[in-house]
Amino acid sequence: MNHHTQVGIIGAGPAGLLLSQLLHQEGIRSVVLENRTRERVESRQRAGLLEQNTVDRLQQAGASDRLDREGLVHDGVILSYNGQRHRIDLAQLTDGSRVTIYAQTEVVKDLIRLRLDADSQQNSTQRSTAQSILFEAEAKRIDGLETPAPTIHYTQNGEKHTLTCDFVAGCDGFHGISRASIPSELTKVYDKVYPYCWLGILAKVPPSTHELIYAYHERGFALHSMRSSEISRLYVQCNVADRLEDWPDERIWSELQIRLGSTGWVLAEGPILEKTITPMRSFVSEPMQHGRLFLAGDSAHIVPPTGAKGLNMAVADTGHLFDALMTWYREGSRADLDTYTEGCMRRVWRVQEFSNFMTELLHHNPERTPFDAHLQASRFNQLITSQAASALVAENYVGLAAKQSAEATT
Amino acid sequence: MNHHTQVGIIGAGPAGLLLSQLLHQEGIRSVVLENRTRERVESRQRAGLLEQNTVDRLQQAGASDRLDREGLVHDGVILSYNGQRHRIDLAQLTDGSRVTIYAQTEVVKDLIRLRLDADSQQNSTQRSTAQSILFEAEAKRIDGLETPAPTIHYTQNGEKHTLTCDFVAGCDGFHGISRASIPSELTKVYDKVYPYCWLGILAKVPPSTHELIYAYHERGFALHSMRSSEISRLYVQCNVADRLEDWPDERIWSELQIRLGSTGWVLAEGPILEKTITPMRSFVSEPMQHGRLFLAGDSAHIVPPTGAKGLNMAVADTGHLFDALMTWYREGSRADLDTYTEGCMRRVWRVQEFSNFMTELLHHNPERTPFDAHLQASRFNQLITSQAASALVAENYVGLAAKQSAEATT
Repeated sequence: MNHHTQVGIIGAGPAGLLLSQLLHQEGIRSVVLENRTRERVESRQRAGLLEQNTVDRLQQAGASDRLDREGLVHDGVILSYNGQRHRIDLAQLTDGSRVTIYAQTEVVKDLIRLRLDADSQQNSTQRSTAQSILFEAEAKRIDGLETPAPTIHYTQNGEKHTLTCDFVAGCDGFHGISRASIPSELTKVYDKVYPYCWLGILAKVPPSTHELIYAYHERGFALHSMRSSEISRLYVQCNVADRLEDWPDERIWSELQIRLGSTGWVLAEGPILEKTITPMRSFVSEPMQHGRLFLAGDSAHIVPPTGAKGLNMAVADTGHLFDALMTWYREGSRADLDTYTEGCMRRVWRVQEFSNFMTELLHHNPERTPFDAHLQASRFNQLITSQAASALVAENYVGLAAKQSAEATT
Repeated sequence: MNHHTQVGIIGAGPAGLLLSQLLHQEGIRSVVLENRTRERVESRQRAGLLEQNTVDRLQQAGASDRLDREGLVHDGVILSYNGQRHRIDLAQLTDGSRVTIYAQTEVVKDLIRLRLDADSQQNSTQRSTAQSILFEAEAKRIDGLETPAPTIHYTQNGEKHTLTCDFVAGCDGFHGISRASIPSELTKVYDKVYPYCWLGILAKVPPSTHELIYAYHERGFALHSMRSSEISRLYVQCNVADRLEDWPDERIWSELQIRLGSTGWVLAEGPILEKTITPMRSFVSEPMQHGRLFLAGDSAHIVPPTGAKGLNMAVADTGHLFDALMTWYREGSRADLDTYTEGCMRRVWRVQEFSNFMTELLHHNPERTPFDAHLQASRFNQLITSQAASALVAENYVGLAAKQSAEATT
């Protein structure tokens, strides 16, 4: 089948789905091609901390009903250094900004439901069979990126199809085909690999503290987080060579107790529902566009998870891309599309710098020198003694810095 | 000759001289052993930026008459990134703290004059020939550090002498014998060598800007500073392998013009009075004491010059040591002496971290990755857009952090 839409979107993650929904609200048609099943997409565990910027965009998209009801609003975050805790009062240090705990997987479910509901409504009134999301549709190749009608070649149920569109949004993550469609001689890549990983668990136990705890410990990093008032999300730093078999449940809980430990506080334990190991990497590919292709989210850049910026970066890119597309569809001007990469990069590097800062502050890097270990401890002490130091972390954490850097470029 | 004093001080730099003066005011006798001539000591070019903490101690020592008259008080400092300037308003960002430009060599002259004047006065009234500073007196060895009467062996005019005392203050810099007198098996050393140097000049030309300019440029760091309203002090980053012959005057001025350059601003040039190359190093030795020996200043730690903390660290150590000695002489308690190292280290590491931060922010490190180069630019952008980021630099630069960290340990 050869069909046509206005914006062809590759990938049904938060970036692709949000873009589709924002465009839909403005009467712009789009199709999302997703190579996995709906069930798989809706069950992938990812981050779960939303900046106010992100909540704002989801509200703008009309996708925040459940988020507004079920999201856990956090006014602060706790940092710990070998058991010494320091709370960063986000609201107080940033004139009232907060973060919201709501799992990425729930954001994805909400957006899918919205898009599919809109399809049914449209189909029932217009007697069409339009589908805004095609699951198990694998994008294979993009042609004609430098023409006014780029074409995405994809397969579904063993059959070959094409989707011709005005623009292609590459929201298909780090391993997707979108970034690879930009000629490599036009691309600059920046990256850094950290010599440790995160072992993450979902556990059926209420969180032991209302707020998140990011803990440095001589034995390695740990993070106390949550998905809801019933489900804890916990992480321990592990070695790059570690496999899941190296981490039986007892070892995980024992390390979490030690690393998160603080006098008079006990971490509640419960059944482990899921266990994964995540490598730690910083990655930026530039430009984020080529002809009529625009990248958003992980397809263009990866951050290590310390600081929880991955989803927030994807939503920020998407917002930026949506705004630029609307300038085209409303005013016929490519101006904002032409400067898309430039408009994103200052924020991208700010978030990269912050994610790198948090990662290096909180992990035990086996390759660090004794001198660097002392600088690391001194940075933590500075957070305790200096309000400016805590304010700087707070404003990056809640995402104010993104707004500030956007202002600085205009 | 075998003689005796209360505090034997090795080294007539700012630390040793200030300690001697502070003790003198409290009626405690000391002798400073200095292996160079008075002329040499008074002509060595060093830093010239005093924190308010340092000015306070010099005032306490009665050594600030000329400093109070001639010191240039600076309310701000300018950072530059490839020609883009950002002024940090020190006074506004720190509730009124400022820095004072007054050369270390002038501090040394003032202190020497004070000590020698006191000698003459004492000798004329008491018919003695007491000398508080012995020039060209080279300390060779310290004995009995773990006894109540340590002895410094020194030579002067080819003759051997001993100075027996209650305590020894090791203020003899990085290459002195004091640190080497602490058994190496008791010592931990931390260090970092930077892959670039500073080429510094003194030039007979009024400074081109009232305030200091710390400049990052793709071609390397440069610093615009001054000794007085008539003399400029300027630096350019150079390679580790460079020799003075590689830098004829024209090349120095040309690089300074480019690296410090900003639209509509010209650096005034003039005769170069002195040229030196300084390696860049961070170094900390711990503990800062052994038995009755106490280290202060460069004998215990070195910072790279970015941030101008070397002299200020030496004065802070000295103030701490003076206070601890007075607890002994007034109350007979060793409590503060016993915790001398501990009392200094948090401040030492804060200053090391800040000096390393400023150094890495402002130099072109030939070994950096492209990823790290972008993080460096993003840190500079953050200074421009975030008041918290500028405030953090300001409070470290004026030395508030030292007070804060002292509070945090008590």
